[in-house]
Amino acid sequence: FSPFDVAPLVPKQPVDAPASTRPSRTVKEFLKAINWLHFGLLIGTPIIAIYGMLTVSLTWKTFVWTFIYYHMTGMGITAGYHRLWSHRAYSAKAPLRAALLIFGAGAVEGSCRWWCRDHRAHHRYIDTEKDPYSAHYGFWWSHFGWLMMKQDPKKIGRANIDDLNADPWIMWQHKNYLKIATFMGFIFPTLVAGFGWGDWAGGYFYSGVLRLVTVQHSTFMVNSLAHYLGDTPYDDNHTPKDSFVTAVLTFGEGYHNFHHEFPSDYRNAYKIYQYDPTKWLINILSYVGLAYNLKTFSDNEIQKGMLQMHEKHIAQKRESIYWGIKKEDLPSMTMEEFDQLVTKQNRKLIIINDNVLDVETFMNDHPGGLSYINMGIGKDATKMFTGEVYGHSNAAKNLLCQFSIATISNEKKDN
Amino acid sequence: FSPFDVAPLVPKQPVDAPASTRPSRTVKEFLKAINWLHFGLLIGTPIIAIYGMLTVSLTWKTFVWTFIYYHMTGMGITAGYHRLWSHRAYSAKAPLRAALLIFGAGAVEGSCRWWCRDHRAHHRYIDTEKDPYSAHYGFWWSHFGWLMMKQDPKKIGRANIDDLNADPWIMWQHKNYLKIATFMGFIFPTLVAGFGWGDWAGGYFYSGVLRLVTVQHSTFMVNSLAHYLGDTPYDDNHTPKDSFVTAVLTFGEGYHNFHHEFPSDYRNAYKIYQYDPTKWLINILSYVGLAYNLKTFSDNEIQKGMLQMHEKHIAQKRESIYWGIKKEDLPSMTMEEFDQLVTKQNRKLIIINDNVLDVETFMNDHPGGLSYINMGIGKDATKMFTGEVYGHSNAAKNLLCQFSIATISNEKKDN
Ligand code: HEM
Ligand code: HEM
Ligand SMILES: [Fe+2]
Ligand SMILES: [Fe+2]
Ligand SMILES: [Fe+2]
Ligand SMILES: [Fe+2]
Repeated sequence: FSPFDVAPLVPKQPVDAPASTRPSRTVKEFLKAINWLHFGLLIGTPIIAIYGMLTVSLTWKTFVWTFIYYHMTGMGITAGYHRLWSHRAYSAKAPLRAALLIFGAGAVEGSCRWWCRDHRAHHRYIDTEKDPYSAHYGFWWSHFGWLMMKQDPKKIGRANIDDLNADPWIMWQHKNYLKIATFMGFIFPTLVAGFGWGDWAGGYFYSGVLRLVTVQHSTFMVNSLAHYLGDTPYDDNHTPKDSFVTAVLTFGEGYHNFHHEFPSDYRNAYKIYQYDPTKWLINILSYVGLAYNLKTFSDNEIQKGMLQMHEKHIAQKRESIYWGIKKEDLPSMTMEEFDQLVTKQNRKLIIINDNVLDVETFMNDHPGGLSYINMGIGKDATKMFTGEVYGHSNAAKNLLCQFSIATISNEKKDN
Repeated sequence: FSPFDVAPLVPKQPVDAPASTRPSRTVKEFLKAINWLHFGLLIGTPIIAIYGMLTVSLTWKTFVWTFIYYHMTGMGITAGYHRLWSHRAYSAKAPLRAALLIFGAGAVEGSCRWWCRDHRAHHRYIDTEKDPYSAHYGFWWSHFGWLMMKQDPKKIGRANIDDLNADPWIMWQHKNYLKIATFMGFIFPTLVAGFGWGDWAGGYFYSGVLRLVTVQHSTFMVNSLAHYLGDTPYDDNHTPKDSFVTAVLTFGEGYHNFHHEFPSDYRNAYKIYQYDPTKWLINILSYVGLAYNLKTFSDNEIQKGMLQMHEKHIAQKRESIYWGIKKEDLPSMTMEEFDQLVTKQNRKLIIINDNVLDVETFMNDHPGGLSYINMGIGKDATKMFTGEVYGHSNAAKNLLCQFSIATISNEKKDN
């Protein structure tokens, strides 16, 4: 395997091409480009769900089961497809791997092998043309637009999935995906509600179809909302964002800025108070021994990113402040010229730190009073200013640059 | 007037001498050093106030009058003595100046001239021996200990009060201070309550004495609490602090870190949501034309201080993070040595940015997978790492320094 046969060079700048600027196609071409299976599923299931909601009433038991199964299949994706197999963020014992593969298929989002392949390409080619769900093609494209169209395998960046190809369980799920997904997506939740408390229709419409639609859109938001809404506390070179709102909607995958920086960390929520039920689940599974080898990046590394972002903001803030004329742009003046200006033209000039300051407009407002600042006029007042008379505050030192009109060119005159 | 006859040099470092280390005195010396007038007032008035509270019941009208007169005399100090005369932070029309001098005297904290002299010395010699109420001598000393002892005029730093000496109103108040203070401190509030609603005793004990004690301790806190409690958002070289609690207790003088940086700003609270009733009063007085020429420092200057404090905190944070072995402390290695180590000793070495990294411990945890990082071993993988294979995140770049074991001494080998 060689990564070079894929791409000459990953574009460094995000390909910022909104849908409208891409070559337009005829209606016929457009229809041909549609992936009808995905399209049918993504449009058909919500219609079935709405029909069910209008005709079948929801019982308490079915509601609870729907809620539980929503989390089981959703976390099959987040704890299984995503953190375990795409990122190998931890290891799992056989029963857990089986459960994650089976319940993950119940979310009907493709086989784990296919899902991870695209997801690894997403990380590797983030925000570029080769990113299968690049956020730069718009919110809806990254949400599920990319799924409704046929994938162009030449365009999507390649990712290495040798480890998955070598895993018999992954290959088994991949080969039997349609059967497993049909059973776990529709039949199994119906059977539970039907045999359990006789609610066959509710089981099908709510725990089956409605739950499926909800889980799908929850996880799709990791590709859309998580690249649009929130902050960038670790790195703002790319689109991923940290957001509590996204976290609540996605089983904890909303700290996506963190995740793209530290993809093999089993956590998405680094901070204790952040919402990441997938992390909590993995913690519990680790406690009972089903998960192990949980990977984390060290605090030290995580702090680095936060620090650098703070430094960046502070530097921007510094840029927004006026710091006077730059030293190199100031004209230079000899001591004789300075003396002349003061004595002949009665200019109110002071030298502090080899800068000539014109304090005419300031002297009446001098917080220390006119008589003190007057003492410095016509002189090098550096010592007076820095302690001999008064050790001025930071604020006073900052103020100086406002009044600079020149630098003194020859040796300092002693005061 | 020359400031040089006062002090050779203002000590740059705060004189950090707790009371216990100062030369101890005999009881006799101690008693001789007490300022008995101040001592009597400061101890006597609270006793009288407590006696009054135990014997006279407080009526609603007297309570309201006490509350109002508390603010009138308190703000006589803060808006008058402090912001107007000590710092010339604004100008005031005659009726306002008269009112401030008269009500200010009702706080019984000395004449305005005396008060400003000490206060200017406090600013100029902040935290040093020459500061009349240096916070470095302890909380109680700066609160009122300094008042109970005789002031050593040789020790207290000098401040220029030429402007006050030239002001006939200030001199009038100074000369007639005892009379004005007695009348405004005790008699006037009693007369108002007595003639107003017949509550002579309540007027004396509550609006007179208790109010006086409260105003005094409120304003004393500007010297004690304001130098102890809170944050230093503008400058942390000295003791002044910003605190909402202090602000509430001191008519808004609690943003004392701001105030020592920008003493001639008529505001203490820079931010709109901060509590500064003295500022609000000055704003109203300016609106009705009694105050004018309100001085402020520009946003630009204030932002500078905040920025610099942020930069300082960020720099401290940077120090607390481990950034690997410093480049200058790394040994250097030739390309031949590198090749040898890799081929002969099977060391897992990679060159990135002229650094030799030992990735043995990391390669199995490499978030991009073992096979990718393996491609770089024994090579200069700079290009692979920065885009040819994958443009690594900030976090990955930060991680590199952990693995550096040497620098490469000769020209880069092409990959
Ligand atoms: C352009 C030159 C100057 C600027 C921008 C300046 C600025 C200031 C500022 C902002 C303060 C308020 C306190 C503080 O922030 O530290 C102050 C106070 C003071 N300044 Fe200056 N100053 C200048 C020159 C001088 C000179 C030449 C002297 C003496 C020869 C002087 C003597 C004082 C004194 C004694 C105070 C203390 C007054 C007090 O806090 O009550 N200043 N000055
Ligand atoms: C000491 C050297 C290396 C370190 C510290 C390192 C670190 C990382 C980290 C932290 C990631 C996670 C994503 C990110 O933060 O950007 C990553 C991903 C990746 N690395 Fe490396 N890496 C190293 C060397 C290499 C080399 C030499 C290659 C290729 C020849 C490589 C290829 C990749 C790829 C393709 C990914 C993307 C996988 C994905 O996101 O799914 N890395 N690496
Ligand atoms: Fe993403
Ligand atoms: Fe991911
Ligand atoms: Fe102070
Ligand atoms: Fe002050």
